[in-house]
Amino acid sequence: MLDRPGGFAQSASGPHQARQNVYVGYQKAGGQSEEQAQWHLLPFLTPPEKAETAYLGENAPPVPEPGEEPWRALQPEQFERTLGAASDTWRADENRFGFSLLSPCDRVPDPRTLEHEQARRLLAPVVTGWIEYDNRDGSEPVQLMFGLGNPDRSMCPLEDNGSSLAGFTAGPAYGYATSPESGAVMRQGFDVFAPKFQDQRGLHVIGGETALVFTVPAGEKKRFPLALGFYVQGTVSTGIRAAYAYTRWFSDLEDVLAHGLEHFAHYEQLAQVRDRELETSGLDEDQRFLLAQSIHSYQGNTELLWNDDGPLWIVNEGEYRMINTFDLTVDHLFYELDWHPWAVRDTLDLFVKRYSYTDRLMDADGTRLPGGISFTHDMGVMDHFTPQGYSSYECDHLTGCFSHMTMEQLLNWVLTAVTYAEKANDLDWLQRNQETLLACAESMHLRDHQDPAQRNGILKFDSERCGDGGAEITTYDSLDVSLGQARNNLYLAVKTLGAWILLEQAFNRLNLTEQAADARDTADLLAQSVAAQFEPDTGFFPAVFEKGNRSRILPAVEGFVYPLYLGLEEATDKGGRFSELLSLLSQHISQALQPGVCLDAKTNGWKISSTSNNTWFSKIALSQHVIRRLFPEAMNAAAKGGDRVHADWQRLPGCGSNAMCDQIISTTGVTCGSRYYPRGVTAWLWLSETDAPLSNGVSPSASLAASNHG
Amino acid sequence: MLDRPGGFAQSASGPHQARQNVYVGYQKAGGQSEEQAQWHLLPFLTPPEKAETAYLGENAPPVPEPGEEPWRALQPEQFERTLGAASDTWRADENRFGFSLLSPCDRVPDPRTLEHEQARRLLAPVVTGWIEYDNRDGSEPVQLMFGLGNPDRSMCPLEDNGSSLAGFTAGPAYGYATSPESGAVMRQGFDVFAPKFQDQRGLHVIGGETALVFTVPAGEKKRFPLALGFYVQGTVSTGIRAAYAYTRWFSDLEDVLAHGLEHFAHYEQLAQVRDRELETSGLDEDQRFLLAQSIHSYQGNTELLWNDDGPLWIVNEGEYRMINTFDLTVDHLFYELDWHPWAVRDTLDLFVKRYSYTDRLMDADGTRLPGGISFTHDMGVMDHFTPQGYSSYECDHLTGCFSHMTMEQLLNWVLTAVTYAEKANDLDWLQRNQETLLACAESMHLRDHQDPAQRNGILKFDSERCGDGGAEITTYDSLDVSLGQARNNLYLAVKTLGAWILLEQAFNRLNLTEQAADARDTADLLAQSVAAQFEPDTGFFPAVFEKGNRSRILPAVEGFVYPLYLGLEEATDKGGRFSELLSLLSQHISQALQPGVCLDAKTNGWKISSTSNNTWFSKIALSQHVIRRLFPEAMNAAAKGGDRVHADWQRLPGCGSNAMCDQIISTTGVTCGSRYYPRGVTAWLWLSETDAPLSNGVSPSASLAASNHG
Repeated sequence: MLDRPGGFAQSASGPHQARQNVYVGYQKAGGQSEEQAQWHLLPFLTPPEKAETAYLGENAPPVPEPGEEPWRALQPEQFERTLGAASDTWRADENRFGFSLLSPCDRVPDPRTLEHEQARRLLAPVVTGWIEYDNRDGSEPVQLMFGLGNPDRSMCPLEDNGSSLAGFTAGPAYGYATSPESGAVMRQGFDVFAPKFQDQRGLHVIGGETALVFTVPAGEKKRFPLALGFYVQGTVSTGIRAAYAYTRWFSDLEDVLAHGLEHFAHYEQLAQVRDRELETSGLDEDQRFLLAQSIHSYQGNTELLWNDDGPLWIVNEGEYRMINTFDLTVDHLFYELDWHPWAVRDTLDLFVKRYSYTDRLMDADGTRLPGGISFTHDMGVMDHFTPQGYSSYECDHLTGCFSHMTMEQLLNWVLTAVTYAEKANDLDWLQRNQETLLACAESMHLRDHQDPAQRNGILKFDSERCGDGGAEITTYDSLDVSLGQARNNLYLAVKTLGAWILLEQAFNRLNLTEQAADARDTADLLAQSVAAQFEPDTGFFPAVFEKGNRSRILPAVEGFVYPLYLGLEEATDKGGRFSELLSLLSQHISQALQPGVCLDAKTNGWKISSTSNNTWFSKIALSQHVIRRLFPEAMNAAAKGGDRVHADWQRLPGCGSNAMCDQIISTTGVTCGSRYYPRGVTAWLWLSETDAPLSNGVSPSASLAASNHG
Repeated sequence: MLDRPGGFAQSASGPHQARQNVYVGYQKAGGQSEEQAQWHLLPFLTPPEKAETAYLGENAPPVPEPGEEPWRALQPEQFERTLGAASDTWRADENRFGFSLLSPCDRVPDPRTLEHEQARRLLAPVVTGWIEYDNRDGSEPVQLMFGLGNPDRSMCPLEDNGSSLAGFTAGPAYGYATSPESGAVMRQGFDVFAPKFQDQRGLHVIGGETALVFTVPAGEKKRFPLALGFYVQGTVSTGIRAAYAYTRWFSDLEDVLAHGLEHFAHYEQLAQVRDRELETSGLDEDQRFLLAQSIHSYQGNTELLWNDDGPLWIVNEGEYRMINTFDLTVDHLFYELDWHPWAVRDTLDLFVKRYSYTDRLMDADGTRLPGGISFTHDMGVMDHFTPQGYSSYECDHLTGCFSHMTMEQLLNWVLTAVTYAEKANDLDWLQRNQETLLACAESMHLRDHQDPAQRNGILKFDSERCGDGGAEITTYDSLDVSLGQARNNLYLAVKTLGAWILLEQAFNRLNLTEQAADARDTADLLAQSVAAQFEPDTGFFPAVFEKGNRSRILPAVEGFVYPLYLGLEEATDKGGRFSELLSLLSQHISQALQPGVCLDAKTNGWKISSTSNNTWFSKIALSQHVIRRLFPEAMNAAAKGGDRVHADWQRLPGCGSNAMCDQIISTTGVTCGSRYYPRGVTAWLWLSETDAPLSNGVSPSASLAASNHG
């Protein structure tokens, strides 16, 4: 966010929880003395408080009038920002000045198998960066500054804790550093621009303002390395008590910062590789921005913990900080399988072990019926793991937000499990989970109908957990009934179809011939049942198969992403077994992608439901992928313009000040929830739409578990 | 502070860093349903945010209009607060409702010697408390609430972490609980007054609002116990790496909370003992409030850490959080010697070992001269220990605030050391520190003059550390030159006299006959030198013996507190060896304690300097003690009225919202610095002015190291 503080935050609900000024900029003497010359800073700050007033009382110097400060924030027309897959780069002064933060991910093997040095490179809680100036045409030296204004928390010069680095830490918890070779001068006090009070080494340790000041001599171009690190010792989670995994391989914050600088070249090169992959991906500029922004927010939401059972993977749900929300896991899947597939597997295992349950169903008259296995919505919230079998989200006696998502999560386990096993080619794991897969199939059948003769494949019952008066919902919880209600829901029905298609695939792998045939039959039946809901008069599917619902939804096609992703061509062949359904969906989508239906009449942004102005980027991205791959005929010019609209939403403060935002009001482009959200990585699927190959064979590294860098 | 959030904070710079709403109050049905009946809350909150908006988007319920909330904050006329030495009690509804937090200190032996159970009782990081209602005359049950609104940090039900207590924690760091026997109902969600969303156990764990709700049946009076605990694992300090001492005896936060409730009766009884001691002390109501407020702020500023060298004692300097600021240590001395004298000793030892230095002196022409030992102003800041030989405060080339305090801290070591050894009767320690005492005496001499023949006892040189253009200052750093300049300073000269008196005493103990005689001779010489500065024309001493200074200061008498405290009657006998000086000081003080001089002309508050409106409560309290004991003839009616003025300053929001405040503008009573300050415990000296005996023989306990409870 421009003209606001930012900086360091841990396990944060968003950028707003980082409350430091960040000082990044340059100072050109321009014939003036250093005291007179003004600092030009990137707009990551508000005017610093004058903390010395508390010490000096009535003798404190007056606060400078606006405009009289020894710095100016660069205005939007004075700088240029480039967000790469693994970098965030800011340039100014005709590109002479540059600043970049690097957060390259890399393919991480199962943490249980990592060697010490490998683990350090892959899991360091560090973000590297650089600051540079091209002074080759200059006649006077130029100063560069990287600093932090932290009035609530004075910082500690690194040398005082036995480090040879130049830099500062906020206690043992977080800090920044550069290498001794950079020749940086350290500043600390109440004012890093014009320090009035200096001790024997030129600092004033009681001051909350710190900075590194670098000099670029006239005639030279220099780039200086930076490392920003975190370190939290001991137990950080409750419910399941665990510590950060990196504490196994790093002794303290000084170790982390030294590592970041020692391996600076590696991280810099790796970030370049990641950036180049996206640059050359064939995606257009808007798509690249959307994906890059999504990756950054996803990374910020990840934590790798470790307890007696080994690694414990967490993706936080953005501002809500729910742990491993299953309807996000199923969307992160496509990204995670390319980078850390063991995280998907471990999450599935923990869902089985701790977050599964067997419920009963409720008939319309309240009669209880046998149900079957399902899984909770999430594993807890804010580093707190909820008790066995329960989420932090789901409540009773509700028909909307916060109700149970029993069917949704049941499908999510099936879809995630089979997609993982197929993509990772992990037949062993599939075999170990055969019983769970069979239980899931049985549970899906029972939720359709107890009597096999009366089944049509579509969910008709609610979990007993909903309680009297309650009804199951879907992941689209805060939308209107078009996507919120689980029973007789178009989105969920097609997703159920996807699950049966994947179950057939899995049962075949497991040589469960009979069960595979049953899954195949059920899929066929369900496809027919859905097709039968098509409205010939309107050419649309209704969003909910009851009460005369006439909402039109794009996630009607979401269930096809799984066979599409796994290359199960029989299921996605428009002349094949699902030709009727696919043909009707083509018609549905083609009509939906019109202004006033599922394109916002005002902004032209994609709306996931025609009857709600609340639209979700992650789900748009997923639908876009399926539609561009399966229903390209629906992609009219207005629909194609969506990427620019969606990217501008995220670029502007209405979303951008909160990192990646998922829930957006389609009429304004302003977020209404799901800020700092990880789920946008569904856009990772877009890469498979282009001819550019996904990269591979990069040397191991990354700040993957450098969790929640604000 | 009323009508503001508060709550839990650790290592905080003041109450403002605790950013939670605290819900404490009662609900009487009054014939209405529970949903309709209103909660009456103590004013520790602002209207809670409606956090569900982030989840529900456009479907979120409207925020209630002011006045429509299901609670009302009690107005000042509706409640009564009583601050005891060890308790903070609030009553309302004609005393039927009561709430109290207990923080009883107890005499703590050297932590190295503590048995496990003893350490747990004395050093538990817990504050206990209770909430009660007298419903003996009621005909309907009354509900009581203790809760916390923590929108940035959802909390974890204690049972989820294996605890049998009712309550909540913010991760592994802090939380609150009651005993299972209390029958409290737990609430958690977006709204604890009217919870809309409830899971299988009636909670909603994603919500940041939590509470315990207790029921008092009609016809009964019930008091329910509370425990508020903290727990921080691992290294918390830098420079010297150390952990909280309590982590040696407590395994986690759940252990701390369980301990607090298990030993609730003990802490409650101990708090009553502490309260009663103050109640029956003979101090008047204003004095009791000032002392109680001071003790609370002192306790909040203490930390007991532990590293390889054993215990590591910290008193933070209030909002500045400097560690063991020596000019505060010398003032805390009188309180600490009654409660934890080993802390004084350990601090003195660390000053010798790590925070002493040998400097040179600067002549007027810049010539360097031999100096001698002295000590730094402090040991660091914000849990960061500065490097060997340097403070966080002192800077170079200054003549005011942030300059060096070399002579001040040299005197502070002598005064603290001898006072400790005498009061604690620790001759062993005195013998081990004989060399340091001798070095201090030599350093004091050299700072007077290199040539013994030219000495008059008064400081004439600045430490070389001040640097060119710099000059030493005193602890009165932010006042005008009347107290700020060290050389030729009345306050410092009389304090130097106190140091020589104590050195004579120490050298006699050590059988250093010659050195004792030298100290005695120097004291006599110095007393004459000071007396010679008296202005017969005005009847005052000047505050600085140069440049025609005419400021009048009360701390002229501060140096006499040490012989007075130790009962060195020869030194305080107004007919004895210092009779001339004492007589002149009597005249000085009698004239100073007049409106317009050192009584503020408008408010009648005591001013430590006639030429500064910045006055410091801790130093007023110390001067009051010396004046009432040694110069009672100066205590005119206006001067006697000071206690009421000073207490009202601290009671009103201008100071009171920041806990104990030291620096106050005498014309307004509003603080201008030194908020949340520990130094007010100089008022502990007042207890020796009354006939009531100081208590002793209380069973061991206390939340002494429950550091920085906001």
